[in-house]
Amino acid sequence: MAQTKYGDDFRLGEVFETGAVTVTETHVVNWAGLTGDFYPLHMDKEYAAKTRFGERLAHGPMIFALAVGLVGLSGVGADSVIAWLGVDDMRMHRPVLIGDTIRVRVEVKEQTRTKDPQRGVQVWLYTVLNQRGETVMSFDYKMMFHMRG
Amino acid sequence: MAQTKYGDDFRLGEVFETGAVTVTETHVVNWAGLTGDFYPLHMDKEYAAKTRFGERLAHGPMIFALAVGLVGLSGVGADSVIAWLGVDDMRMHRPVLIGDTIRVRVEVKEQTRTKDPQRGVQVWLYTVLNQRGETVMSFDYKMMFHMRG
Amino acid sequence: MAQTKYGDDFRLGEVFETGAVTVTETHVVNWAGLTGDFYPLHMDKEYAAKTRFGERLAHGPMIFALAVGLVGLSGVGADSVIAWLGVDDMRMHRPVLIGDTIRVRVEVKEQTRTKDPQRGVQVWLYTVLNQRGETVMSFDYKMMFHMRG
Amino acid sequence: MAQTKYGDDFRLGEVFETGAVTVTETHVVNWAGLTGDFYPLHMDKEYAAKTRFGERLAHGPMIFALAVGLVGLSGVGADSVIAWLGVDDMRMHRPVLIGDTIRVRVEVKEQTRTKDPQRGVQVWLYTVLNQRGETVMSFDYKMMFHMRG
Amino acid sequence: MAQTKYGDDFRLGEVFETGAVTVTETHVVNWAGLTGDFYPLHMDKEYAAKTRFGERLAHGPMIFALAVGLVGLSGVGADSVIAWLGVDDMRMHRPVLIGDTIRVRVEVKEQTRTKDPQRGVQVWLYTVLNQRGETVMSFDYKMMFHMRG
Amino acid sequence: MAQTKYGDDFRLGEVFETGAVTVTETHVVNWAGLTGDFYPLHMDKEYAAKTRFGERLAHGPMIFALAVGLVGLSGVGADSVIAWLGVDDMRMHRPVLIGDTIRVRVEVKEQTRTKDPQRGVQVWLYTVLNQRGETVMSFDYKMMFHMRG
Repeated sequence: MAQTKYGDDFRLGEVFETGAVTVTETHVVNWAGLTGDFYPLHMDKEYAAKTRFGERLAHGPMIFALAVGLVGLSGVGADSVIAWLGVDDMRMHRPVLIGDTIRVRVEVKEQTRTKDPQRGVQVWLYTVLNQRGETVMSFDYKMMFHMRG
Repeated sequence: MAQTKYGDDFRLGEVFETGAVTVTETHVVNWAGLTGDFYPLHMDKEYAAKTRFGERLAHGPMIFALAVGLVGLSGVGADSVIAWLGVDDMRMHRPVLIGDTIRVRVEVKEQTRTKDPQRGVQVWLYTVLNQRGETVMSFDYKMMFHMRG
Repeated sequence: MAQTKYGDDFRLGEVFETGAVTVTETHVVNWAGLTGDFYPLHMDKEYAAKTRFGERLAHGPMIFALAVGLVGLSGVGADSVIAWLGVDDMRMHRPVLIGDTIRVRVEVKEQTRTKDPQRGVQVWLYTVLNQRGETVMSFDYKMMFHMRG
Repeated sequence: MAQTKYGDDFRLGEVFETGAVTVTETHVVNWAGLTGDFYPLHMDKEYAAKTRFGERLAHGPMIFALAVGLVGLSGVGADSVIAWLGVDDMRMHRPVLIGDTIRVRVEVKEQTRTKDPQRGVQVWLYTVLNQRGETVMSFDYKMMFHMRG
Repeated sequence: MAQTKYGDDFRLGEVFETGAVTVTETHVVNWAGLTGDFYPLHMDKEYAAKTRFGERLAHGPMIFALAVGLVGLSGVGADSVIAWLGVDDMRMHRPVLIGDTIRVRVEVKEQTRTKDPQRGVQVWLYTVLNQRGETVMSFDYKMMFHMRG
Repeated sequence: MAQTKYGDDFRLGEVFETGAVTVTETHVVNWAGLTGDFYPLHMDKEYAAKTRFGERLAHGPMIFALAVGLVGLSGVGADSVIAWLGVDDMRMHRPVLIGDTIRVRVEVKEQTRTKDPQRGVQVWLYTVLNQRGETVMSFDYKMMFHMRG
């Protein structure tokens, strides 16, 4: 199929918003199983009740993973991305509790040309918000894009 | 239960190695389902066959998640960690194919005292290696630790 | 093993009832993951709260799938079925909410002989009921059966 | 958010094609677990080897479910759909084996106005194709759409 | 619903055989995730290759769990069982490799009356066989049954 | 890697305690799916409400499986175990409800030398406790250990 979207289609400073997903107990239990992270703050209700949070938290790295998934589901990047290069400055700002609903605000933060006119590097700032509009996580997501050249 | 391990128990430059896990097709399919990342390079064998990789790749963020899980399963940090603060400089160095086996080499990279003598911040460098000992991913993992004070 | 049951063992108009299953949040989240259907009415509690349903609904096609599974688990058809031919007139009559419990009432609706005396086609009407006995879905399920010939 | 797409945006006879997904052993095992359909043709390699297929088949209803998911992931309907009304004429044309890759060709087959100018009913014909372009399943998918009125 | 089957319906020494299930890599990975058993003999292909088995084994307790499930799916006990009392003499006779297909042969081994004429205790010997008819596991499964009194 | 722990490192009568895990609805639904045990006491809220328990119970064999997993996650046996030999005297003492949190108390109960000085057999008594410290299950877990010889 012909390429439908290119890195050129995104302007510096442009902002997109994804759909949302409710982070359920199922997400937390399945995440623990897939990754092996059975830390009691996520898996032991009695332990969590004695922490300052009072209940089980979603795993931080899962919020990152769900954010990446939400951006994919939103279709904004479509087929413009060639490769994922990395992540910088990932910070957890607030805990996500079971039952919270998260969505992502994406901002085109940096755009760099490469020697190859058909390839460009961009950094998109992903800000994960909960149902109250509070920032729970943010990170810089770096990708290689197809460019019209 | 009494605290068994503290941030003080880790020396700058110290290195640990975790156990390993084989990244299976099941991991990839379950990951897509949990996060919503159905990008064809991971989910469509026919598409992947036409890329320069020749076959489906594991999702990059899953390698990060599995690395965090492997360190947890290794028990090295035990109950010394208070909170996960964030990640910097996450880079994918090589693709991980279905059937590859990964493990993590952890190096204590930075140790910082805080105003509270019972809390310290440390950065641990996680290097993910495949079954040929090649580095597939690396990142700085920043955590708040209990300190003996 | 010898064939234990044949299409001849079912009389036109005969009715069977299956066991029941509670449709949980886990079913909904796992279903989304397996099929890729992350529509917000199923996955986003905040979105669902603003609809006329007031909460997340189970995916309609999952009710179909669970109905097929319940009939299988009931053992009624046993080893009499050769192949699944198709479905007609599938209709969703009422939404299924997380926590509802569904069961299936099966009625033998049509029986057709084929040129091969050992093969017959039958249509079974599957009516899915919730815990209040309300019909939530119905469909005609068409199968090829072993016949005594 | 403002409505972005309406039933009016689809012309009778228009055709869309979705992305594809490889149907893996993981899909089959997870499907059996979610629905309770442990029929040996899907779950017992030894049994399947003695059938005319020679190996385990994917569950027919799962192909339906994956097709619905693929259309959702393609984003073609976006937020134009109000409700799923039902399915007619679902037929399995060829078996899907573990390792086959399926995609959906969608054709706008029927468009009906309702008394409410802001609501329309449409039937879309979903044709599921394998990696050789062969039709494995087809069905009519009936939905209620937002109309510009 | 009226009780359909009673402990009285099973004769001492009677033998039943269940259907079979192929133990897949998906079973092993999902089992590890659900239970937290990430022992390398099950999860690390490279480690397993160096053992005398040469490849990853299915978890022993999963063979037990699958056996219990296969007996349930066979429908033999139907609604006659009141409660599961325990297990004795569970032994692993041979390893189960990924790709093996197991089924269960059940023998009614002990029948005991209780003071309550409507309740009886029975021990059923479950023998798990692989696709070559070799015994891989056996155990005594003790249950409380409804009796006709 | 060099062997880190041996059977000799455990003294007769020694007691260990594992971390805990909350048994969620997700565990129950995923367990049913993996094993095929869809018994209504676990899967049908309406049925369970009419039993003396008043609600759905966790599957007994899952408590066994989670106990084995919790001991593995605790790291107590580390790499000292060569093989799992079997289980005796598994008894369910109390039901586990969805939402209960379980942990395991392990006692070294029997230690037997074999003809091979580098191999020893040990029986560890696993007692599973709920959040109120009540025993819900107990069993003898028999393993072959590496010995210093």
